[in-house]
Amino acid sequence: MSRPIIHADILLRLVRSGSVSRAEKLLDRMHPADVATLFGQLRPAESQLLIDLLFSSRRAGKTLSELPSELIPQFLDQVDDERLAQIVLRVPPDDGIMFLEALEPDRRARLLASIEVGRRKELERLLLYPPGTAGSVMTPRFLALAKTATAQQAIDAIRTLGEQVEAIFYLYVVDEDGKLEGVVPIRRLVAAPPERRLERLMLADPVAVLASSPQEEGAQLVAKYNLLALPVVDPGRILLGVMTVDDVIDVLQEEATQDMYRLAGLADEDRVFSPIHTSVLKRLPWMSINLGTAFAAAGVVTMFEGTIAQKVILAAFMPVVAGMGGNMGTQTLTVITRGIALGEFEFDRAFRVILKNLMVGVCMGAAAGIMTALVAWFWQSDPLLGLVLFLSMVGNMAIAGLVGSTVPVLLKKLNQDPALGGSILTTTFTDVCGFLIFLSMARLVFHLN
Amino acid sequence: MSRPIIHADILLRLVRSGSVSRAEKLLDRMHPADVATLFGQLRPAESQLLIDLLFSSRRAGKTLSELPSELIPQFLDQVDDERLAQIVLRVPPDDGIMFLEALEPDRRARLLASIEVGRRKELERLLLYPPGTAGSVMTPRFLALAKTATAQQAIDAIRTLGEQVEAIFYLYVVDEDGKLEGVVPIRRLVAAPPERRLERLMLADPVAVLASSPQEEGAQLVAKYNLLALPVVDPGRILLGVMTVDDVIDVLQEEATQDMYRLAGLADEDRVFSPIHTSVLKRLPWMSINLGTAFAAAGVVTMFEGTIAQKVILAAFMPVVAGMGGNMGTQTLTVITRGIALGEFEFDRAFRVILKNLMVGVCMGAAAGIMTALVAWFWQSDPLLGLVLFLSMVGNMAIAGLVGSTVPVLLKKLNQDPALGGSILTTTFTDVCGFLIFLSMARLVFHLN
Repeated sequence: MSRPIIHADILLRLVRSGSVSRAEKLLDRMHPADVATLFGQLRPAESQLLIDLLFSSRRAGKTLSELPSELIPQFLDQVDDERLAQIVLRVPPDDGIMFLEALEPDRRARLLASIEVGRRKELERLLLYPPGTAGSVMTPRFLALAKTATAQQAIDAIRTLGEQVEAIFYLYVVDEDGKLEGVVPIRRLVAAPPERRLERLMLADPVAVLASSPQEEGAQLVAKYNLLALPVVDPGRILLGVMTVDDVIDVLQEEATQDMYRLAGLADEDRVFSPIHTSVLKRLPWMSINLGTAFAAAGVVTMFEGTIAQKVILAAFMPVVAGMGGNMGTQTLTVITRGIALGEFEFDRAFRVILKNLMVGVCMGAAAGIMTALVAWFWQSDPLLGLVLFLSMVGNMAIAGLVGSTVPVLLKKLNQDPALGGSILTTTFTDVCGFLIFLSMARLVFHLN
Repeated sequence: MSRPIIHADILLRLVRSGSVSRAEKLLDRMHPADVATLFGQLRPAESQLLIDLLFSSRRAGKTLSELPSELIPQFLDQVDDERLAQIVLRVPPDDGIMFLEALEPDRRARLLASIEVGRRKELERLLLYPPGTAGSVMTPRFLALAKTATAQQAIDAIRTLGEQVEAIFYLYVVDEDGKLEGVVPIRRLVAAPPERRLERLMLADPVAVLASSPQEEGAQLVAKYNLLALPVVDPGRILLGVMTVDDVIDVLQEEATQDMYRLAGLADEDRVFSPIHTSVLKRLPWMSINLGTAFAAAGVVTMFEGTIAQKVILAAFMPVVAGMGGNMGTQTLTVITRGIALGEFEFDRAFRVILKNLMVGVCMGAAAGIMTALVAWFWQSDPLLGLVLFLSMVGNMAIAGLVGSTVPVLLKKLNQDPALGGSILTTTFTDVCGFLIFLSMARLVFHLN
């Protein structure tokens, strides 16, 4: 399976050395998806050359519709309006609006104005759905018939329209208003007697998603019920489009990447092969916030300078309490964020979930506290220090469980990304509280100032 | 779209209150996938009751094949061999071996012996592929014809065999030895003239995955090339089975969960609704290791007790240096782990990737170092402390970039999970090195002992 990668490497070298005609020949033998991933590794002048090659070999549409979303802004800077309009018209409409959505409003309006009215209207309808909704990833081209049509008529319709409809997995059955009544898998159609009517073949009242719902909701339904495509409807169940399984895979993969990235404080554009300056620049904002919270924690410690001066061993154990709380917080955030993404979590169970994580924090704190107390006792011969460590460990890990579960649940309720900022907030709490609880308890128990 | 959840809640209550007949009626109206997810929230006696209900209402096969993999061990403890054999026979073979694989060898052998020879052989062939390989998730039932067959013959074959083959998306074309020659999408078949031969309809030499390859490799191919199913072959390209897109979605989702969980040190069974004792018990092993590394870092600090006693402010800045290194390490791990999962990373570029992350670490360290130095200068009026902070920040974040990229790349090369243990190792390094660099440099610069 390593042939595509070898091809990609050769193409990379040909583009870098400017060997246009050999690159063109290789392009012919490569899958568009393999070509598209190369853009992440090219310098601006090189990707400009590859774009030229794609246009001259008439492979621009197929290749650029495979472009990962994080590379689209860079690509848009490198094509003029005429070429961009060509691409938008050549790719399926749901891919076309991916480009349009990433444009600044002026350029988008200019571009749309240059497109003939039929296609423009189709694109404008899709643009009504904000990025991230099911409507924004649906294809508006599907095959729908009345329930009185026969299997043979349906097969004829597929033969006629087949080339225009992106991917036919199901035939949809609608009433005269376009309201979704049922769905017939193509396979069932093929196996049916030619004269059988669709109403006898269809599965009635199929599961559907609202165009205004988050795209993840549609993706979760496809994943849960093992579908190949999901009807996208308006509140009156009028069929508007279809979300296909290949888009669903993209949505689920992007979603998982985003959650992992947000838990770590990373921007989407920060990839394995993105240039050093991209990684650095994109990390600076979160790093500054992180640093700010670290100073807040440091500020707490300075309030106890006298305490530490009298009993320096506290400085050694202080990061243990904060660090274990940080781990507990990250674990709690991870479980809940992933549970939300997998559709395992509903808000009406929020209280139970938060309570559970508080209890897990207390138990984990007790376990970690006992181990730490024993170490302090035997290593430092200081049972009182062990007691202080035990109590502050329980307190800090309980806080970690509480904050680590409340933050994502609240963010989700407010329709925000549950992972966003959660880790910053949680580690700030566990650092500040960890130092505060541990040092103030030590001051009290050892009568320090 | 909230109906399934309301149903699930009612069913939960009916099962808990033991209202058998009402629960049975509700079961009839629910999708098996919605019923299966309930098992995660039931106590043993309750899930026993639900299992009984599923068997009495003849819905056990459909429902239990939707069981999330982390709940299977618990389920296996609750059914006797006779019922388990029923399930294994009723579900598609790729789901059946999911249960068999989770059994201890004795019980598996006993169970297989009770199954009639034809089905047993099919299952035993699948069991040859270790869990996690493409072979272990493929379905061995597919439709393959010779290239001389016509479109009409193919459609007739689908009509005849349709019910036995799990999901038909493509028709495969094989030679007399069973070697894969091509693939015909069903849609193309439907649209073709009846007398056209498959050799003129097929896409030749389709992409395929080796049965012994990791399941993620197959899943990545399906995701990348937007396929509905992927042929699984032996080294001689003999067609053995098919990996379907619904299994691929499961593989990709599980993979993402595992990566996130491993980065946070969590076990697969530790879910939003798993009982408190499960979460606590499953977290204890990793927590103990974490605690051990925290003590190692504390041990480093005790080597500098004299230093800190003379300049207590070091205790306040010490966790800042370690913490920022820890963040950098986690970010590096996250980018690389996700890059590996998305198929963006190949080992022959390992050196470039490690070098990049080392450089990013140096740059980020310089940026964080300047900010921290300024804070130390203006807040503590201590420019020398600022210098020490700057240098140790650069050093520690460079180490974070180096270790955070080398560990997952090496683990991947050794065919281990790249996320496993990576975060423990990285934070240990950044804590120990952070304290060591910062405190020893401070000792030197301020002439402390």
